Amino acid sequence: MENGTISDKKIEEIQDKAATLIEAIPYIQRFNRKVIVIKYGGSAMLDEELKKDVIQDVVLLKLVGFKPVIVHGGGKEISSWVGKVGMKPSFINGLRVTDEPTMEIAEMVLNRVNKSLVRMVEEQGVHAVGISGKDGGLLKVTKKLSKGQDIGYVGEVKEVHPKILLDLLQKDFLPIVCPIGYDDHYDTYNINADTAACAIARELQAEKLAFLTDIEGVYQDSNDPRTLISELTVSEARKLMKDGCITGGMLPKINNCIEAVENGVNRVHILDGRLAHCLLLEIFTDKGVGTAMLSDDAVSADKI
Amino acid sequence: MENGTISDKKIEEIQDKAATLIEAIPYIQRFNRKVIVIKYGGSAMLDEELKKDVIQDVVLLKLVGFKPVIVHGGGKEISSWVGKVGMKPSFINGLRVTDEPTMEIAEMVLNRVNKSLVRMVEEQGVHAVGISGKDGGLLKVTKKLSKGQDIGYVGEVKEVHPKILLDLLQKDFLPIVCPIGYDDHYDTYNINADTAACAIARELQAEKLAFLTDIEGVYQDSNDPRTLISELTVSEARKLMKDGCITGGMLPKINNCIEAVENGVNRVHILDGRLAHCLLLEIFTDKGVGTAMLSDDAVSADKI
Amino acid sequence: MENGTISDKKIEEIQDKAATLIEAIPYIQRFNRKVIVIKYGGSAMLDEELKKDVIQDVVLLKLVGFKPVIVHGGGKEISSWVGKVGMKPSFINGLRVTDEPTMEIAEMVLNRVNKSLVRMVEEQGVHAVGISGKDGGLLKVTKKLSKGQDIGYVGEVKEVHPKILLDLLQKDFLPIVCPIGYDDHYDTYNINADTAACAIARELQAEKLAFLTDIEGVYQDSNDPRTLISELTVSEARKLMKDGCITGGMLPKINNCIEAVENGVNRVHILDGRLAHCLLLEIFTDKGVGTAMLSDDAVSADKI
Amino acid sequence: MENGTISDKKIEEIQDKAATLIEAIPYIQRFNRKVIVIKYGGSAMLDEELKKDVIQDVVLLKLVGFKPVIVHGGGKEISSWVGKVGMKPSFINGLRVTDEPTMEIAEMVLNRVNKSLVRMVEEQGVHAVGISGKDGGLLKVTKKLSKGQDIGYVGEVKEVHPKILLDLLQKDFLPIVCPIGYDDHYDTYNINADTAACAIARELQAEKLAFLTDIEGVYQDSNDPRTLISELTVSEARKLMKDGCITGGMLPKINNCIEAVENGVNRVHILDGRLAHCLLLEIFTDKGVGTAMLSDDAVSADKI
Amino acid sequence: MENGTISDKKIEEIQDKAATLIEAIPYIQRFNRKVIVIKYGGSAMLDEELKKDVIQDVVLLKLVGFKPVIVHGGGKEISSWVGKVGMKPSFINGLRVTDEPTMEIAEMVLNRVNKSLVRMVEEQGVHAVGISGKDGGLLKVTKKLSKGQDIGYVGEVKEVHPKILLDLLQKDFLPIVCPIGYDDHYDTYNINADTAACAIARELQAEKLAFLTDIEGVYQDSNDPRTLISELTVSEARKLMKDGCITGGMLPKINNCIEAVENGVNRVHILDGRLAHCLLLEIFTDKGVGTAMLSDDAVSADKI
Amino acid sequence: MENGTISDKKIEEIQDKAATLIEAIPYIQRFNRKVIVIKYGGSAMLDEELKKDVIQDVVLLKLVGFKPVIVHGGGKEISSWVGKVGMKPSFINGLRVTDEPTMEIAEMVLNRVNKSLVRMVEEQGVHAVGISGKDGGLLKVTKKLSKGQDIGYVGEVKEVHPKILLDLLQKDFLPIVCPIGYDDHYDTYNINADTAACAIARELQAEKLAFLTDIEGVYQDSNDPRTLISELTVSEARKLMKDGCITGGMLPKINNCIEAVENGVNRVHILDGRLAHCLLLEIFTDKGVGTAMLSDDAVSADKI
Repeated sequence: MENGTISDKKIEEIQDKAATLIEAIPYIQRFNRKVIVIKYGGSAMLDEELKKDVIQDVVLLKLVGFKPVIVHGGGKEISSWVGKVGMKPSFINGLRVTDEPTMEIAEMVLNRVNKSLVRMVEEQGVHAVGISGKDGGLLKVTKKLSKGQDIGYVGEVKEVHPKILLDLLQKDFLPIVCPIGYDDHYDTYNINADTAACAIARELQAEKLAFLTDIEGVYQDSNDPRTLISELTVSEARKLMKDGCITGGMLPKINNCIEAVENGVNRVHILDGRLAHCLLLEIFTDKGVGTAMLSDDAVSADKI
Repeated sequence: MENGTISDKKIEEIQDKAATLIEAIPYIQRFNRKVIVIKYGGSAMLDEELKKDVIQDVVLLKLVGFKPVIVHGGGKEISSWVGKVGMKPSFINGLRVTDEPTMEIAEMVLNRVNKSLVRMVEEQGVHAVGISGKDGGLLKVTKKLSKGQDIGYVGEVKEVHPKILLDLLQKDFLPIVCPIGYDDHYDTYNINADTAACAIARELQAEKLAFLTDIEGVYQDSNDPRTLISELTVSEARKLMKDGCITGGMLPKINNCIEAVENGVNRVHILDGRLAHCLLLEIFTDKGVGTAMLSDDAVSADKI
Repeated sequence: MENGTISDKKIEEIQDKAATLIEAIPYIQRFNRKVIVIKYGGSAMLDEELKKDVIQDVVLLKLVGFKPVIVHGGGKEISSWVGKVGMKPSFINGLRVTDEPTMEIAEMVLNRVNKSLVRMVEEQGVHAVGISGKDGGLLKVTKKLSKGQDIGYVGEVKEVHPKILLDLLQKDFLPIVCPIGYDDHYDTYNINADTAACAIARELQAEKLAFLTDIEGVYQDSNDPRTLISELTVSEARKLMKDGCITGGMLPKINNCIEAVENGVNRVHILDGRLAHCLLLEIFTDKGVGTAMLSDDAVSADKI
Repeated sequence: MENGTISDKKIEEIQDKAATLIEAIPYIQRFNRKVIVIKYGGSAMLDEELKKDVIQDVVLLKLVGFKPVIVHGGGKEISSWVGKVGMKPSFINGLRVTDEPTMEIAEMVLNRVNKSLVRMVEEQGVHAVGISGKDGGLLKVTKKLSKGQDIGYVGEVKEVHPKILLDLLQKDFLPIVCPIGYDDHYDTYNINADTAACAIARELQAEKLAFLTDIEGVYQDSNDPRTLISELTVSEARKLMKDGCITGGMLPKINNCIEAVENGVNRVHILDGRLAHCLLLEIFTDKGVGTAMLSDDAVSADKI
Repeated sequence: MENGTISDKKIEEIQDKAATLIEAIPYIQRFNRKVIVIKYGGSAMLDEELKKDVIQDVVLLKLVGFKPVIVHGGGKEISSWVGKVGMKPSFINGLRVTDEPTMEIAEMVLNRVNKSLVRMVEEQGVHAVGISGKDGGLLKVTKKLSKGQDIGYVGEVKEVHPKILLDLLQKDFLPIVCPIGYDDHYDTYNINADTAACAIARELQAEKLAFLTDIEGVYQDSNDPRTLISELTVSEARKLMKDGCITGGMLPKINNCIEAVENGVNRVHILDGRLAHCLLLEIFTDKGVGTAMLSDDAVSADKI
Repeated sequence: MENGTISDKKIEEIQDKAATLIEAIPYIQRFNRKVIVIKYGGSAMLDEELKKDVIQDVVLLKLVGFKPVIVHGGGKEISSWVGKVGMKPSFINGLRVTDEPTMEIAEMVLNRVNKSLVRMVEEQGVHAVGISGKDGGLLKVTKKLSKGQDIGYVGEVKEVHPKILLDLLQKDFLPIVCPIGYDDHYDTYNINADTAACAIARELQAEKLAFLTDIEGVYQDSNDPRTLISELTVSEARKLMKDGCITGGMLPKINNCIEAVENGVNRVHILDGRLAHCLLLEIFTDKGVGTAMLSDDAVSADKI
């Protein structure tokens, strides 16, 4: 037998929490059984605290009815291991060449990162399965050239065979994918995680594709943080690129977003992975915290 | 295109909300696909604001994976309508006799209350179906006597035929039950809503049975609000009754609780329906806000 | 041990029964798993004997493989209750205005009628579930005006959401629907039972829609009972209306029939509910006992 | 457009038919989805009119929800064909020996009888599948000796492999079985149709097993037709055999009945196949027209 | 405890076997769950050894994932039985007339052949079910005339109702069909086994249709065995017929093949049933052993 | 059009192949849908040719109906990588300590080996999914001590959660498991591949568990290759150990075998992985090529 009463202050505090849960109702209803693909990378993968936040966000999305799929990178860890074994990188057009030994290390490292994410999800009581693009024939690639030159085992996604993902989702697992594929000869290739996430989101006709990045979002004036764009259509994005507002590393990311939206993904989110719980903040609030891209004919009103 | 940035204060506020959602994770996981029967009555049915809170709580429980079933009463409305049509009540042992015309009105009123709850749930975007214990043969009764005397169409639940509830739950509806049953001759009977809820919870082997009442819970000393008991085993409850700590209207309620726990319901909650969101507060916090009864061998540690 | 022999006369009598059962074979085969919507109202709802006959007919239709859905009215009982509570009706264009208190009583009365039908079906050993158009969001309405004037909570069916009916039929229940709906604001509305039955039959693409009425059927010359029409196409019906053969209260009913047939209901039957077992008689005999309406291109030969 | 009215006499006549259909309701409900095995043989197989009646009865039983299985014989046709090809029978203990050529003809004839029954059922619009005990490995036998002597390919059922029957029933076919089996060496054997029907009824745990015979049923005094027994328990049957009331060809039939009842068949019916529609008469009337055997502890009250 | 070692020679021998099994991998994969219809007739049905080979081949095809359906003839056995019973055949246009007594014998004989094939498959441990075109209404026919003259109960397939075949395949049985059908009056007809096989293959959209014949295949020059054609398109076949290379009994067979290919059967094989295991040889080797016909646009490269 | 005839010699050769396929029939039937767990390690993992043979064998087993699960090791590759990064191993009781950096490398290497096996299976046209014991919570461990001393992240399987394996098998994937597990704190542990295979085989109640080793099998006299034991019961194995015939590295392996057999695995095979196609040879021949262990009460006669 336990007893004692609850202070009014405590009750008020808990009722605030109740209110927060109640507020989530329309969002939970809207996304029931919808697929969300999360490209997980950058700072959010390096900081242990942020890592835990991201995993908790994804676990919550799953528990309230979303069907999340994580696609992750692992760039920094690969470089670090390449160094550890004393390999000397070669370059073409300023790009590191992924020769066979490099690919071997990349595969080892990416799979280990993959399993460490599996572990974090499992720790939250949700069952995850970590796969690469070789499992179940998920990601078939062709060699990607750089200005016509061979830079090794770097692949471009040619076909997505989604059966393994659909089966894992149906069986209530959370799939975690590392961006490795195979070509016609079943050779192993590294794939850019952004494009892998994009290809998977298209194939699954995902409701959402979210990129966890190291920027706040897209700016109208990249020198003025007050010009962060919260919502952007495809043609607006194209105009910004044409006008030179979007440049550098953002270009391929924006092109990925456009391609996803034009191929059936309802909304693509560029989020600041350095902001704790950015995923929940974007999805469970009206304005969101990053930049969302949507098709030209999506009415802004039905935001979310 | 929409833009603008979010103030730090706003972000902090939203992150608090994120934290609340994250906190709910273990509770959501624990009750996934579990049945919770909610006896809805008392003040929580009279105050429009509380009514909305209760419905929101139930809707949220459903959205995060519970399978809720509402059983409601309607006492005050019945009396009011009996008056409106100018009927004169008769009494036996101080109890109002439910003669045929009274039963007729009771059935009309309870069904209307039932449909008004259906409406409130539907308004939240969740599909509800309101049934009585006659639908699908759900609640079969025998006449209940008061000290051996006939007090009319007042029934005691004899059999629960749960097919209609199980089918509605399987098809993702929220069932709302009004406590009316039928006897061997298919005559219509009024049933005490507490015992109807109890019988249904037993038959469904519900994880939880929650009574929304007009008291805070069970007290060790009914004159001292500081002695509210938050958790109570069956044998502790029996001792309190023997010691005269539990008296009056609480006695049948406690007996209902004991019977439910002894017949497979995991935990029975006596909640204060006057407290906004009491359902969420009890279920999503460690200590809870009312009194929970559990079997003697349930380890207190696994509270919830 | 029981013994004794059976007289020849008795055997002949029973063989007649066998012959009747055998005769039903082609009809039973033809309608296996087909939906039949029965609008139940008028005298057939007031006379206890007729009531029992109708229910038995519907139960038999269900047992031999039909999927019946009952839609009922309750007009006279509503008026009687409105009187009991001493309400004074107001009128617009000679039509009673359904203000809020009237709607409240109408809902109570219709739901009680609904449950009394549930009871009668259950008594025959078949499981029924009584719902209103608010349950599962079945019947969404817009306000219906009379010559542009507001006559209160009288609705016109705008959308039918058939999931609850399909689920109940799949789970082998007999659904009984009372004609109450909800609008955009989830306010409660009364619906004309004929139009509700018609809308439901269209949505379910019913094989048959049968109206139990207080007339024998449609006459070519309404003064000459020998001119009862047993079968009628849509264009013939239109001609009869144009020629002034169909007038008064029959006009909206015939228009409902036409609309149903033009929207995919195979055959609409106008039956005399005062004739015992009129449903079976119409369905299990070649000529039938009322008027059947069918589309212009339905070949008369494939009657039934 | 067809018109004309119906005479009162006609209506009365049709209402009698309605009454007959209504009377069948409790029987139809009781046997919904229950298996009934019908041993079809004797006169009912020779007279074309009776044949049609039997098939109609079985088809009706199927349409109202039973799951019938027909097991048929073909004795007289076999003898006739053996003669046609000029074979000379040999005998042991007065029993015809089923040598290989005889078995060959028996198999041909029985399969043809089988397909002619299939045809008759198909003609009624119900899909039938004719199989022998060799199909799907249904009936495995051992050689049956007569007083220790080999009488050829006459088998005793050793194992029933019911998968093919269960699959056909599940897929809504009416299975028609001819009593041919196979032994360990996959040689073909003739089986007594009564014992084949009995073995199948046991394996399927049939609700009913009905023998269409050339007698009215079991008599207490075989010389007095007024002593026909309508219901009989296993121990009563044993007593009658002991007392010498049951003799001759009835003995194995009664033993088959006893065995079936003792192995889970609810009720075994011995019917007079010469009486038109005897199946319906036995099943859809209270007293029935033949002799029903049931277990000692079956309460007579729940007849049917 | 058993011991002893294996000689090197033995190991080599077994490894050869392993190699054979390994070689079958791509064929097994390609035909997984595909339907193959086998027209079984001619010498392969008369020689006991060949018979066993054919059955083994079919059983193996089933075990490795094919869904085989056997359609068989029985010509010679029918003639032999017609003689046994002393019937005198009549002829029209040089064709034997299938009068009623002949049809009766044909049905008996074909069903017996059917069950003997069932037995052989069952003996291999695979469950078979033998049906005729009357079972489940499989093959509906119209009377076939010879130059406008009635030659009795000889039918042309008009409709194939494949439910019974699809159900048996789904339930993992091997269906064996004898070519008997029924007309509008449910009279029984003999059907040419080649055309029955062809009609079934079309209806099931079979991957393959294989004819076991008494010839090696199609020759370019029928006098020169070295000109056996291993693969042939529809237009090549038409040209050969036009050029007079294909004549006599081959003409209808080739027309059947063409019709099958043009109606969705992927490949039709004419095989020499006198060659042991010709089915496996054709399917599990690159060149095959008979003549395969395919559509004009099938690329020869993807042979098989 | 392709033509040409086949030489008799060629035909004979192909018929030999047909015979081999036919011989496999009883084995294929016996193991339909049975689980076989293959512990893959030793030389068979180092030699590219043997590797391909093993994969082909497993693929064939899958195609003919088995449900194979591969559990692999990776010992030598781990040591090689530990060297490459210049780590210095520490030892306790002569055993290498698996400290955190070692575990990190082990996980990377094992996962890469895992994916290279996935690739080889996929190359054969069969879909494989490579998982570790962390995915789906498959293998939960406790720390294993060596003579009471901590040797780092070396785990003993405590619980197997087979859902992920059952789901992958149901969805027709070939699961490939690397022997890594997690403890109560979700830390990562290395597991001996033999014991992991054994635990999985027990949990799945596998028909067979096959160890690919670098020995021919178990000998009665380890110095005399002619004393290879082909079949061995548990009690015979125990006696051999007691008598000192089995020693050294064989002891734990034999104990694993005994434990598997005693916990429901039907037969455990110790095979010589250096022998090409040893898996097929053991399973598709009567005597087999290694040592099979079975329970004492398994009758030797039903070998296989």
